[in-house]
Amino acid sequence: MWIVPESVIADLVDEHSAFDAIEASFAAMARGDAYNFPVVREALGAGRQYGFKSGLDRVGALLGVKAGGYFPGNADRGIPNHQSTVYLFDQDSGKPTAIVGGNLLTALRTAAASAISIAHLARKDAKVLGMVGAGHQSAFQMRAAVRQRQFDRVIGWNLHPDMLSRLAETAAELGLPFEAVDLDQLGAQADVIITITSSFDAILQDAHIRPGTHLACMGTDTKGKQELDPAILTRATVFTDEVAQSISIGEAQHAVGAGILHADAIVEIGAVINGTHHGRRDAQEITVFDGTGVGLQDLAVASRAVALAIERGLAQKIDF
Amino acid sequence: MWIVPESVIADLVDEHSAFDAIEASFAAMARGDAYNFPVVREALGAGRQYGFKSGLDRVGALLGVKAGGYFPGNADRGIPNHQSTVYLFDQDSGKPTAIVGGNLLTALRTAAASAISIAHLARKDAKVLGMVGAGHQSAFQMRAAVRQRQFDRVIGWNLHPDMLSRLAETAAELGLPFEAVDLDQLGAQADVIITITSSFDAILQDAHIRPGTHLACMGTDTKGKQELDPAILTRATVFTDEVAQSISIGEAQHAVGAGILHADAIVEIGAVINGTHHGRRDAQEITVFDGTGVGLQDLAVASRAVALAIERGLAQKIDF
Repeated sequence: MWIVPESVIADLVDEHSAFDAIEASFAAMARGDAYNFPVVREALGAGRQYGFKSGLDRVGALLGVKAGGYFPGNADRGIPNHQSTVYLFDQDSGKPTAIVGGNLLTALRTAAASAISIAHLARKDAKVLGMVGAGHQSAFQMRAAVRQRQFDRVIGWNLHPDMLSRLAETAAELGLPFEAVDLDQLGAQADVIITITSSFDAILQDAHIRPGTHLACMGTDTKGKQELDPAILTRATVFTDEVAQSISIGEAQHAVGAGILHADAIVEIGAVINGTHHGRRDAQEITVFDGTGVGLQDLAVASRAVALAIERGLAQKIDF
Repeated sequence: MWIVPESVIADLVDEHSAFDAIEASFAAMARGDAYNFPVVREALGAGRQYGFKSGLDRVGALLGVKAGGYFPGNADRGIPNHQSTVYLFDQDSGKPTAIVGGNLLTALRTAAASAISIAHLARKDAKVLGMVGAGHQSAFQMRAAVRQRQFDRVIGWNLHPDMLSRLAETAAELGLPFEAVDLDQLGAQADVIITITSSFDAILQDAHIRPGTHLACMGTDTKGKQELDPAILTRATVFTDEVAQSISIGEAQHAVGAGILHADAIVEIGAVINGTHHGRRDAQEITVFDGTGVGLQDLAVASRAVALAIERGLAQKIDF
């Protein structure tokens, strides 16, 4: 069994390799070669959340589980509140093959998903990237996104304006100018919008969004969370990582729950990757990617990390 | 993080320590200090089964998951078809604390559950132990059971009589005479009956079971499996590890499904351990323990294994 600790992940997996691994996983899901098992998610008390995301990719030879959660007392002890570990197994024998630190990988795989949606769904001439949300994850989303189009600037909004410095600093690191804007300006100027908040109410209203925009909604991963006015989804074509999650814990839960969007109308992004769905129809179409986060994403990047760690002598082999 | 491989488990955990660990877990469940998370169980194709059992014991400080399943091609490669690994986490921080080989532990925890039911529910004067089933697990059940009463002999039945030698050999190892019997004789002579088969039809009929018998039904852990005529459960008081599993995947699924047993009538064995339920009422009562197997059992024995392994220098510490 291979051990790949959190400390070596940053040297192994970057935006490129995460993009490739997750794109292959989404494609496998849409082909029916891979599927996610039911998610376990439990409140442990005192704000702690814990759970398991797992799945199987028969062709990609992935079987495993990400165990992880949110532990709000960690920051005071100098460790991340989000804690994740990925456990991989041999799909033929069930024997454990690897244990992989999952904190950075979770950030990278979430960023890769919105980047993949931009690569396949945003207008080719997109120039302005709009960011809604300026938390820890927003920097990862921006770094992965800017590689997909020739963006010439970044604009952003956050509920707490004092946090916007993260967006400004990340844009500077990427060589792009940044401007803080209100939501009217954001909708009017951005060609691509990434939402990455923990909101429980719609932030972007229907009137904010102009034709041709691509929205990657990455914050809504739980029943009750919401970032978009459901009316946006009725004007848009809605894509997702997994339809079952999109309509239950993703952004589409609200539009589907209100009866204004039918689950059958939601397209798996893997179908676009595989070429079985045409993707964006024209320059006026609004496209929404409802990124909910699936176990196979975690397994895909963890498996890539293990392969690279073995190749570079950074994995520890233990008898088990 | 501590690594406790399968190879050292046999030196660490025996029937005694498994009994104590699981009794404490059942007690914690009945007090409301511990609970099991939803079970994930998936058919992977080609006969392979895989899944996750997980839970939290706030007071016993257990958080974790057993990942495991059944891989029918393993035997040909010289490894067990059943493959299990237990992963433990710190309930305050979510950080992984240990990885423990789970194959032998699964056998021990399943045996401990029926032994606990015998300790708390069988008549004190029970002399004859009846075994239904002679597969791999039957030997573990017998070894754990004989410690709970002054049994003077073992009788047994199996669908395939050629396998009865396992029961004969195990009884001999325990210094007890063994006799193969038919089901009429088994019901007429046994004071305690353990069923441990993979049957999908009732084996023991209502007419087989005489007053005062304790039955520990350990084989039914999936929708559709069955070992007892449901009528037995209407004459008996039914105990279980977890009511939710008992009525959905345990032996009680059939009687409850037929409307002849109400879920509210099923008693958690932990209530008997805690003294909040009186247990057996009198020498004529038939008691049934519906042992379905819960994640907390796995976490309890794995945690015990880790503590003992650290104490005896058999655990490997790795940076993670």
